[in-house]
Amino acid sequence: MVRLRPKAEARAIRHGFPWVYVDELVTDRRTQALAGGTIATLEDAERRPLATVTVNPKSKIIARVMSRDAGVEIDRAWIAERIAHALELRARLFDAPFYRLIHAEADGLPGVIVDRFGDTAVIQPNAAWSETMIGDIAAALTEVTGVTTIVKNGSGRARGLEGLSEETVLLSGEVAGPIPVPMNGAIYMADVLGGQKTGLFFDQRPNHAFAARLAKGARVLDVFSHVGGFALAALAGGAVSALSVDASAAALDLAGQGARAMGAEARFATRQGDAFATLEALAAEGETFDLVICDPPAFAPNKQALEAGLRAYERVAKLAAPLVAPGGYLGLCSCSHAADLVQFRAACGRGIGKGGRRGQIIHTGYAGPDHPMLPQLAETAYLKSLFFRLD
Amino acid sequence: MVRLRPKAEARAIRHGFPWVYVDELVTDRRTQALAGGTIATLEDAERRPLATVTVNPKSKIIARVMSRDAGVEIDRAWIAERIAHALELRARLFDAPFYRLIHAEADGLPGVIVDRFGDTAVIQPNAAWSETMIGDIAAALTEVTGVTTIVKNGSGRARGLEGLSEETVLLSGEVAGPIPVPMNGAIYMADVLGGQKTGLFFDQRPNHAFAARLAKGARVLDVFSHVGGFALAALAGGAVSALSVDASAAALDLAGQGARAMGAEARFATRQGDAFATLEALAAEGETFDLVICDPPAFAPNKQALEAGLRAYERVAKLAAPLVAPGGYLGLCSCSHAADLVQFRAACGRGIGKGGRRGQIIHTGYAGPDHPMLPQLAETAYLKSLFFRLD
Repeated sequence: MVRLRPKAEARAIRHGFPWVYVDELVTDRRTQALAGGTIATLEDAERRPLATVTVNPKSKIIARVMSRDAGVEIDRAWIAERIAHALELRARLFDAPFYRLIHAEADGLPGVIVDRFGDTAVIQPNAAWSETMIGDIAAALTEVTGVTTIVKNGSGRARGLEGLSEETVLLSGEVAGPIPVPMNGAIYMADVLGGQKTGLFFDQRPNHAFAARLAKGARVLDVFSHVGGFALAALAGGAVSALSVDASAAALDLAGQGARAMGAEARFATRQGDAFATLEALAAEGETFDLVICDPPAFAPNKQALEAGLRAYERVAKLAAPLVAPGGYLGLCSCSHAADLVQFRAACGRGIGKGGRRGQIIHTGYAGPDHPMLPQLAETAYLKSLFFRLD
Repeated sequence: MVRLRPKAEARAIRHGFPWVYVDELVTDRRTQALAGGTIATLEDAERRPLATVTVNPKSKIIARVMSRDAGVEIDRAWIAERIAHALELRARLFDAPFYRLIHAEADGLPGVIVDRFGDTAVIQPNAAWSETMIGDIAAALTEVTGVTTIVKNGSGRARGLEGLSEETVLLSGEVAGPIPVPMNGAIYMADVLGGQKTGLFFDQRPNHAFAARLAKGARVLDVFSHVGGFALAALAGGAVSALSVDASAAALDLAGQGARAMGAEARFATRQGDAFATLEALAAEGETFDLVICDPPAFAPNKQALEAGLRAYERVAKLAAPLVAPGGYLGLCSCSHAADLVQFRAACGRGIGKGGRRGQIIHTGYAGPDHPMLPQLAETAYLKSLFFRLD
């Protein structure tokens, strides 16, 4: 049992907010001594049971709601039920089993990310309880989905905040090499053991699809391309050429493998290097494109980085806009939690203006439906994708 | 020539803001006497030319920017160029010529809406200049798109604000009856002479498409259905049944005609009546559905109506949520300019909670890309569509 302080807001928890911050909980010696991941009943200040939570005294988010019923037993069967509920949505929406299967709090498994690549699942156990119960999570995944290979990916910032170590290990099955992933008619190569995050970002799927619709007959530039996200979708949509720019040679190599798997290698090229420098170089070379997309990493991952992050987004827009042919299209994306849509849109508008262009917004997109969000946790709407048509 | 007052913000115009409000302009007797729709050069307070504008002394928006170049001749050829630019985007995005072709300011023709239904175009000339130049607009439309029938639709609130009368007339060609419109695999019947607005709302297309993906095998309820917007898309997506609720018998009749044209009449039913009363009646009858969508008219069309509007959205959510089967889906829409996404999402969340349910947001959608918006005119992002999955 853990208890909210008198001043803490039990109402938020009752209304579905999934977190308790460290200053909201009575952190006596007993609570401080709890092992990270301990399951407990959360009570309000009047000792009325509120919820079943997992506690991690090492984290600023000291408790996460597992169930709004108090006294629930968190075991393999309980986890399997959550996975089955999440699977139902994905099976309804997607033709092939390649998607984010579990999107943490919004899918009822706090701090846990599971991406599915056919028979392979990659788990990111970013909360202490899921590190402790990784065996049960893996077993439940196998039971519910039939996956044969399971990777535990322990990279990323989130685990550090929970006091967890970084390590990526194969829990079951085998990984022979990059896994081909069909999406929007393209084929991506996901390196589930060595890649960024779980090997592929599924979140841009609807925005990739929108880019593909614009791409017919177009010359396309994809900056911060990673494994070819927008470039390969554009090739599937009928682009005459696509150029992927990324700082990572390994990511561009995977993009090239994807293009080959699609039989589109003749229309595909890569350019390794710093994105800003490459945008400037392309302008100096007098290059233009019918469709330019910039999907940078999070420039504003937190409130402290907001101003600098918005300036970086503005700079991307400013450097990219001159590369767009008259009447062409510019896609600008942000995966920053701290920058909301209004701020990001304004930064893009300023940058496009400073780049000497004007335009209309034709598409505002978020992450796909396999990345649901809790209404109570608007911060989880991290991904914003804006497509402009420039005059 | 018209001139900004010294305190007025020339910077906004230079940055692409398309409107001058009446208190920003020097309104001497000469300006007051200008005929609505007069084309003039806008100067800043220091008499430097800023833009070519259309002036309407009867409107609070006393001047609208036609071109950021001063001294441009606004004639049929100029209009045709704007239409051709807009057509290029639509032709790239849509397989069939059914879309909003001109979305006013964002497509460079202030106050003008043109919806295209194959060989028929419906013009809403909602600014005075377009009333004056309707002949040139119609001729340019025919020249650029090849449409043979043109309707001028003079209904709606916007014309009143410009001091224009209400009237709907056939400018050329003929209208034999409702026009079948293919969209998302469904067929809608558009009554371009007698229907609401231009006869059909194209703006929900991407959200209809999302509903269709959720609809396979589902029992679907479409409230405020108009001519069957979400219901027919759901039938095209494989719904086992769809029930359209609307106050208008004429709209429901068109929905029924659409269902018959799709060969889906056996799966389609209608219920005429007040939406709130019908939601309550369905709950009293113990009905549940796998997918419920509510797409009401603008409850908060302006700032004054915001609070009452948000309460109405909350009430819709509260009444609709109990009708959703466990694990089912609820789509809630707003076409209110005054309610932004954050306010609307909060109202929906409160309503769902008061309806005794909880859920995750799986889709946030706006109007389709044939409804572009100016970055400088964020108000034009009127349409919001949220899809929840309920526990």
